[in-house]
Amino acid sequence: MVWDAWGVPSGHAPLPEKIRTLLAQVFGVSGEPVARRAADDVPLRPRALTGEQLAALSAVVGAEFVSSEHRDRLLRAGGKSTPDLLRRRAEGPQDAPDAVVFPADHEQVLAVLAACAERGIAVVPFGGGTSVVGGVDPARGRFGAVIALDLRRLDALVDVDPISLTATLGAGVTGPQAEKLLGAHGLSLGHFPQSFEFASIGGFAATRSSGQASVGYGRFDDMIQRLRIATPSGTVELGRAPASAAGPDLRELFAGSEGTLGVITEVTLRVHPTPETVAYQAWSFPDFATGAAALRTVVQTGAAPTVLRLSDEAETGLNLARAGDVGGNAVGGCLAITTFEGSAAHARARSAEANALLAAAGGTALGEQPARDWEHGRFSAPYLRDALLDVGILCETLETATSWSNLAELKTKVTAALTDSLTAQGTPALVMCHISHTYPTGASLYFTVVAKQADDPLAQWLIAKRAASDAISATGGTITHHHAIGADHRPWLGAEIGEVGVRVLRAVKQAVDPAGILNPGKLIP
Amino acid sequence: MVWDAWGVPSGHAPLPEKIRTLLAQVFGVSGEPVARRAADDVPLRPRALTGEQLAALSAVVGAEFVSSEHRDRLLRAGGKSTPDLLRRRAEGPQDAPDAVVFPADHEQVLAVLAACAERGIAVVPFGGGTSVVGGVDPARGRFGAVIALDLRRLDALVDVDPISLTATLGAGVTGPQAEKLLGAHGLSLGHFPQSFEFASIGGFAATRSSGQASVGYGRFDDMIQRLRIATPSGTVELGRAPASAAGPDLRELFAGSEGTLGVITEVTLRVHPTPETVAYQAWSFPDFATGAAALRTVVQTGAAPTVLRLSDEAETGLNLARAGDVGGNAVGGCLAITTFEGSAAHARARSAEANALLAAAGGTALGEQPARDWEHGRFSAPYLRDALLDVGILCETLETATSWSNLAELKTKVTAALTDSLTAQGTPALVMCHISHTYPTGASLYFTVVAKQADDPLAQWLIAKRAASDAISATGGTITHHHAIGADHRPWLGAEIGEVGVRVLRAVKQAVDPAGILNPGKLIP
Repeated sequence: MVWDAWGVPSGHAPLPEKIRTLLAQVFGVSGEPVARRAADDVPLRPRALTGEQLAALSAVVGAEFVSSEHRDRLLRAGGKSTPDLLRRRAEGPQDAPDAVVFPADHEQVLAVLAACAERGIAVVPFGGGTSVVGGVDPARGRFGAVIALDLRRLDALVDVDPISLTATLGAGVTGPQAEKLLGAHGLSLGHFPQSFEFASIGGFAATRSSGQASVGYGRFDDMIQRLRIATPSGTVELGRAPASAAGPDLRELFAGSEGTLGVITEVTLRVHPTPETVAYQAWSFPDFATGAAALRTVVQTGAAPTVLRLSDEAETGLNLARAGDVGGNAVGGCLAITTFEGSAAHARARSAEANALLAAAGGTALGEQPARDWEHGRFSAPYLRDALLDVGILCETLETATSWSNLAELKTKVTAALTDSLTAQGTPALVMCHISHTYPTGASLYFTVVAKQADDPLAQWLIAKRAASDAISATGGTITHHHAIGADHRPWLGAEIGEVGVRVLRAVKQAVDPAGILNPGKLIP
Repeated sequence: MVWDAWGVPSGHAPLPEKIRTLLAQVFGVSGEPVARRAADDVPLRPRALTGEQLAALSAVVGAEFVSSEHRDRLLRAGGKSTPDLLRRRAEGPQDAPDAVVFPADHEQVLAVLAACAERGIAVVPFGGGTSVVGGVDPARGRFGAVIALDLRRLDALVDVDPISLTATLGAGVTGPQAEKLLGAHGLSLGHFPQSFEFASIGGFAATRSSGQASVGYGRFDDMIQRLRIATPSGTVELGRAPASAAGPDLRELFAGSEGTLGVITEVTLRVHPTPETVAYQAWSFPDFATGAAALRTVVQTGAAPTVLRLSDEAETGLNLARAGDVGGNAVGGCLAITTFEGSAAHARARSAEANALLAAAGGTALGEQPARDWEHGRFSAPYLRDALLDVGILCETLETATSWSNLAELKTKVTAALTDSLTAQGTPALVMCHISHTYPTGASLYFTVVAKQADDPLAQWLIAKRAASDAISATGGTITHHHAIGADHRPWLGAEIGEVGVRVLRAVKQAVDPAGILNPGKLIP
């Protein structure tokens, strides 16, 4: 990952002419990118670890796996939200962990935690660094120093069970590495969030990630069979069976714990045979309500697509679901995408059932191509966001979920909160939305917001984000469907789980991390 | 429920002649039932509640909803396991709660908990009383008195959302009541455990119940959208969306908490339209391994039956899956049952896919009738168990789950533990097994054990049960797939969730129930 933007350098490209034209028309910006700081020129907060502390960490993992180098620290300075990038592009010194520690295995993670608990050093577990909610900010809490615990060396396919269709992966395995390792066994995980190319297995579990094929293969938490976790109080291994009535499911306490309760070091996951075929079918609906009702019918009937998405009128109009052609000719109405994976017969039977339902619900079949276009560009939206930031446009996303019956109300309220807030700041916004995760009882809503940057774009966005979060909370949505809590959503968690819920989280934290070194300032209110 | 056996009096009948013949041949028992105690003659432990305590409880719920009557106490003396019934049929006084309290609503539950916490009175939440793991034993812990908190007055369908296909039910609603209430809206829950006729919504949630249609509609915990819980520390309401990344899923901490962390008062559940059709199809497999592999293929392919079961050779030979004809002519091999529910087209498509897979995997189609027979008698096995107890036969069940790759080993080890243990006691046993809950990654195993009663049948069974539990734990199975922990499985929970897991449960308990009044002696090691 580059330090001040998403992804790899090769993913970044100048804005296409048609987008520059659009920006000039709508927002009156020229489309000329500003210069960014060179990584080596960025002053970092001075290192706070003592020689004794560095020696203790080196004694655990080896001196070559403890780095206080400028570049290593800078690359773990935080996540990839728009506020993160705005902060990183601003002038002045940059906060960063005091050192980056690279443990080799579970036992070294345990030993690092013990060493840090003893010395009062905060620990931020670090996977792909793709958090968009401040989840990997190098916060020190009440401690004088903080390390990033980078899990990339835990990169093995530990075990495959081709009978039970499960696989155990190290926490540091990235999305592409997982697919490659499993692919050698004819298997696939099928977890494709937008962060797929960089994010890690441990991060997926710690944040309850949800991929674009969640309708077909489930959310990441659904896939978890077994977790191995290192805590300052020792090892926890959870999950003996596909399902159990042996009391509370403690896996669900550590899944989504965002590094505050322990460091997930290994995850055993449900996998599936590499699909023989993929069937693609795109649809157009006259409006969002009709399209949403159609998706609802499909998922409530159990027609079982692998991917099922719907863009609203604004997103469809900008062609945002077809990354290669944003701003180009759109299909009109509301674009829906379906894919069906499995054996040829299975995919054929399921797509026939879903197609009949979608047609009966008012959809017009658009053939395969728009669905293939969506798939082709599905990981590239963050690069476009970065290019927009460079030319003075504010662009950010946020997401929520609710029941089907509350979906329209929630969409209206969040859209109004965003547009009102940004209009009131003198920067009218374009707000687009899609449904990308559906369940029999409800769905997610994913918003993309575009406006002209104000003089202080960070403050500008935080006002809009707060308004949207308040609207989500007041309208009964969850503050996050798949981005997690981190630091940014923490003020809204209390309303969601209540006072007793917060007390429970604090009690668990106290039990497993009595010194409080694990990811301070995240998740727990 | 009758006090010393399963179910209602009308469900009890003398053993059919063919079973009596079989018992005489195999176990040398005559088949003549022994006389049981009349309820009114059973001496109960003296009431321990003071006048002030009773007055305080009456002040909350009204005097007519606090009972210290002999019959009310006796009917809440515990659950319905074979050890429970053996204890109840033995001579001597019977333990029982000191009073039974019937709150009207959530607020009264909160107030009862507060009154009991203040006065040091243990509280056993009581639904249908169908626990087979000692989950509703009137244990006092360190307190002088205990009440049964009977939730039957929380019997409303609180809310229906026909768009989102969810419904909110009071904790005291029983299985049949739920289906009736929902049926009036054209909806069904589809949760049909063997305890269906008596057990309650709150109990299903508190014990992670799993019904016979779990392949189609999910386990009960899968159905939970929202929980309302009264704790001594206040109300908890959890679940805002079909799915969320807002930290740990605390619903999964209260689901399966067995009344030790709070009293579940309302549950919002995923429901579905009353199915238009049900397709039935039975199969025979030459042996259990072939049948298990066939079921695995079906569930891993996503062929989506509603019910999917397989009896082993011994269970098939005794015709145990066809309650009306136990001991009669069996189909031979291993009997498998499938049903498919939904629209006619949906059921047809799914059954066609599954039928092709089952036939290709070595199954012989047996037509509809054995599947209909199974459905017809599916709630009646506990009555047969009771009749066997009456004639000097020991009969009990236990269950576990594991991955597909570990299933054969686990079945072998548990069967050996049971047969070896009972043979060593001079009472050779018949051990039968079926798979009734399947998942892409594994399955449950449900064992039925029959032997001649020894002089002390309770001690005889506890030795066998301990051997089976040790075998489950050592072979990597879960100590319970759907019966819960209660008092009986508590010694094995520590091995399953580890020392840190136990510490977490204790910390949560301390946070929500600092006085420790909730269901002492259950679940938490």
